[in-house]
Amino acid sequence: MSRVKNILFIMCDQLRADYLACTGHPTLKTPNIDALAARGVIFTNAFCQAPVCGSSRMSFYTGRYVQSHGATYNNVPLKIGERTVGDHMRELGVSTGLIGKTHMQADLAGMKRLGIDKGSIQGVLAAECGFEPWERDDGLHPDAFVDPNLAYNDYLREQGYEGDNPWHSFANSGIDEKGEVASGWYLRNAHLAARIDKAHSETAYMTNRAMDKIAELGDTPWCLHLSYIKPHWPYIAPAPYHNMYSPQDVIAANRGEKEKADPHPVIKAFMGHEESVNFSDEEKRRHVIPAYMGLITEIDDHIGRLMAFLEEQGRLDDTLIVFTSDHGDYLGDHWLGEKEMFHEESVRIPMIIVDPSRDCDATRGGRIHALTEAIDLIPTFVDALGGEAKPHVLEGKSLLPLLRGENPAGWRDFAVSEADYAWRGARLALKLPPDQTRAYMIRTERWKYISYDQFRPQLFDLEKDPNELIDLGTSELHAEIRNEMEETLNHWLRHRRNRTTMAHDVIEERTDTAKKRGIYFGVW
Amino acid sequence: MSRVKNILFIMCDQLRADYLACTGHPTLKTPNIDALAARGVIFTNAFCQAPVCGSSRMSFYTGRYVQSHGATYNNVPLKIGERTVGDHMRELGVSTGLIGKTHMQADLAGMKRLGIDKGSIQGVLAAECGFEPWERDDGLHPDAFVDPNLAYNDYLREQGYEGDNPWHSFANSGIDEKGEVASGWYLRNAHLAARIDKAHSETAYMTNRAMDKIAELGDTPWCLHLSYIKPHWPYIAPAPYHNMYSPQDVIAANRGEKEKADPHPVIKAFMGHEESVNFSDEEKRRHVIPAYMGLITEIDDHIGRLMAFLEEQGRLDDTLIVFTSDHGDYLGDHWLGEKEMFHEESVRIPMIIVDPSRDCDATRGGRIHALTEAIDLIPTFVDALGGEAKPHVLEGKSLLPLLRGENPAGWRDFAVSEADYAWRGARLALKLPPDQTRAYMIRTERWKYISYDQFRPQLFDLEKDPNELIDLGTSELHAEIRNEMEETLNHWLRHRRNRTTMAHDVIEERTDTAKKRGIYFGVW
Repeated sequence: MSRVKNILFIMCDQLRADYLACTGHPTLKTPNIDALAARGVIFTNAFCQAPVCGSSRMSFYTGRYVQSHGATYNNVPLKIGERTVGDHMRELGVSTGLIGKTHMQADLAGMKRLGIDKGSIQGVLAAECGFEPWERDDGLHPDAFVDPNLAYNDYLREQGYEGDNPWHSFANSGIDEKGEVASGWYLRNAHLAARIDKAHSETAYMTNRAMDKIAELGDTPWCLHLSYIKPHWPYIAPAPYHNMYSPQDVIAANRGEKEKADPHPVIKAFMGHEESVNFSDEEKRRHVIPAYMGLITEIDDHIGRLMAFLEEQGRLDDTLIVFTSDHGDYLGDHWLGEKEMFHEESVRIPMIIVDPSRDCDATRGGRIHALTEAIDLIPTFVDALGGEAKPHVLEGKSLLPLLRGENPAGWRDFAVSEADYAWRGARLALKLPPDQTRAYMIRTERWKYISYDQFRPQLFDLEKDPNELIDLGTSELHAEIRNEMEETLNHWLRHRRNRTTMAHDVIEERTDTAKKRGIYFGVW
Repeated sequence: MSRVKNILFIMCDQLRADYLACTGHPTLKTPNIDALAARGVIFTNAFCQAPVCGSSRMSFYTGRYVQSHGATYNNVPLKIGERTVGDHMRELGVSTGLIGKTHMQADLAGMKRLGIDKGSIQGVLAAECGFEPWERDDGLHPDAFVDPNLAYNDYLREQGYEGDNPWHSFANSGIDEKGEVASGWYLRNAHLAARIDKAHSETAYMTNRAMDKIAELGDTPWCLHLSYIKPHWPYIAPAPYHNMYSPQDVIAANRGEKEKADPHPVIKAFMGHEESVNFSDEEKRRHVIPAYMGLITEIDDHIGRLMAFLEEQGRLDDTLIVFTSDHGDYLGDHWLGEKEMFHEESVRIPMIIVDPSRDCDATRGGRIHALTEAIDLIPTFVDALGGEAKPHVLEGKSLLPLLRGENPAGWRDFAVSEADYAWRGARLALKLPPDQTRAYMIRTERWKYISYDQFRPQLFDLEKDPNELIDLGTSELHAEIRNEMEETLNHWLRHRRNRTTMAHDVIEERTDTAKKRGIYFGVW
């Protein structure tokens, strides 16, 4: 018996799966997220569909692979017409909205072509990825392009932080040793305290907004996407989080000399990016990561506050809670910074789900190692709320059977993630046109295979080499495995759900019915 | 120098590539279409993207493969948001409309979701595949479902043909030997004359409507899709076309005993369909095909009339003319009826293009054997009218270089066509779910390879076996060729244009520009 009425879908940005105490980080403190996990389940093998914000999120929000929705990178507009979580939830009578970041880029050309007024309800929803924009804030606001009406800046000014862009000058800047304002855009300033009271940080503010909205919604069923920008850069945290962790708390980088000496051409090009060069410097790495860790503990504190609030509101019993992230962060592992490629540090995501239903009691506090994907969330929500599965559109699988402790037959054998680095310097270094920059990861329990346009594949044996330090992409011994994996990829490519306008049961009803409809052909 | 200002895009329905005098039919008379070919070019290796009306047309009209547009069969709605020929033409200031058939099924659910009013201009265009519906008539009107406002029925009643559905009772019925009305829905009545004057037939009427519209448009640039339902069934023609050809004029069936004795499982299932059983009967075949041929000569007469009209209007000099068909017709070849599978009789289409520009003089009256596809038409139109290529959306290639007699480097090595037989009795016979019914054809100059879900592939050597009577799908000698072809298919699947909301030049402009936009990451 599901007792789920509401969905609280919490996403962090760039939070690595292994940067929580409950997922094994030895020095990081995340007691509230750990408590969440104790009430629910940790999915230890959850993968994002693209290790970059925009395309990963479009998969989370559409329940479809990047190959299917086509928004292959940040700021590629999601095609008008793609259905999103809001469409699926609203069909079930659930009010669905956003507080925080989506990285949605509206298909304005498509909207214009179809005469969709940006000010109409449908226009707003189409432009906001199906969410009611209770408060949209994508969280990166360079001075030159800052929205003069940014609500968080208005809020900061109300608190006394002055200027055109207090998001930058206060919330994401510190005061350096010379007493000057030092921008959080620069890694060198990661050790400084952000110039705001922790009660006014982006994380605090968005949590407040979520609590306000939940209180306002009362007994109306809701799906709230609380989407924190942190611990995404700028890597700068308010006190006390800015110096809660020291360089000694930073775990060793996962990287090998052989990786650096003989890299795959695409990885080599990424190693040449500024973020990779800087994060490869151990001193810089240990300078920055404590801030990243502080930002995580900050989030954890607000998760605690939010859970106390939900309890007080009586919502813990009827709300399914998801805690996840859009992708990870290399932080210097494999001689890389940022994300985009497919090592576990980048592509594996934290995924904690708490379903209050009694039939999920069996798995509480446990870990589920089955391969799961970001696109599984919408089918899970639909299932929890009693909606119909839509396998002709949604490409993921409901996680409810796993949450109930079942061992569903035919669970997936592999997870897929995709990349498109057309916009990156790596493409220029590799001298590629913008349509030859895709890569696909096929990740089974044991193997990780990465197939690149124009270059040889990579292969890792996660059983023998869990740290992915030995690329078997040219190993003669592994030719057969690579072929099998490539076949798996091809089968997957062929079976993307493109026939999205007709449900399978409609096809069943219509099969071989021409005569019934008065259409006679081939009849003597 | 292009002098093209207008596009006349003529499509027949179910007209086989080899059923014209100018493409080699020994007994059929098509002097006007032959004259068109003499003024232009016959593309001898033109293929539809799906050998079935709806999905083939959605590829013609979107310039995209079925895998990309997703309307995989008749009546599968074309996803809202897919751009069509009308969108591309209107950007160039060209008035674009339809007279006749499209088989477009509107994505009404998508329109509703986006708040698109069916009565608005954008709503009408979205529902009509981007065409202004100057007169839409899909041409099959069973009595039980006939639109009471069908314009052609109104027209027939004005001419004195009475009843609820004179489309059926007059234009597509005859009078049998007992003096009773005999429906053209039945093959056995194919020898009868339709009960209308030839001046009132569907083909005559649509031609009239096209001429009226062209006259009305005057000097406004236009793209007119004149889309005849014929020679598609019901196979019944008005006098004198009904008995213009006799069984002696019917060419021999292209079929072999081995094909019948040991067919591929999917082909075997299709052989079991009623239309295949009936067309496999030589007597029935020779009874029906003369009517099919008569309908073609009827079209030819009206093409003559239309060309005389264009000449009189002074439009021959500034109008690019295309004459083609959505797919072929087995007519009993390979023991099959109808279409849907990939033998040349079904998948190869007639394609004649007349470009009045002087730089196309070199090829007039010639034949071009390069592999061409239905999706090449929109890029050709855009190119002829001076528009920009859109390789991120349009998957075909402009034919203008070929029309100018150039030998463009890197012309395609293979054509692709796709099938989805989920709606057919064959699926039930094969006991398949509706998502395991796709097939893909890869057709090179020499080989035709067909890859099916769930079953072994087929392979034909068109050099040694141009009639496709010997399936090499299990030949050990050809394992390597099959592997190569499967690899080609996989490469193709991987490179479908799904990133349709961002042009390549926008990507070039934006590559590696984060810093310019004030977004600093990984900067020390």
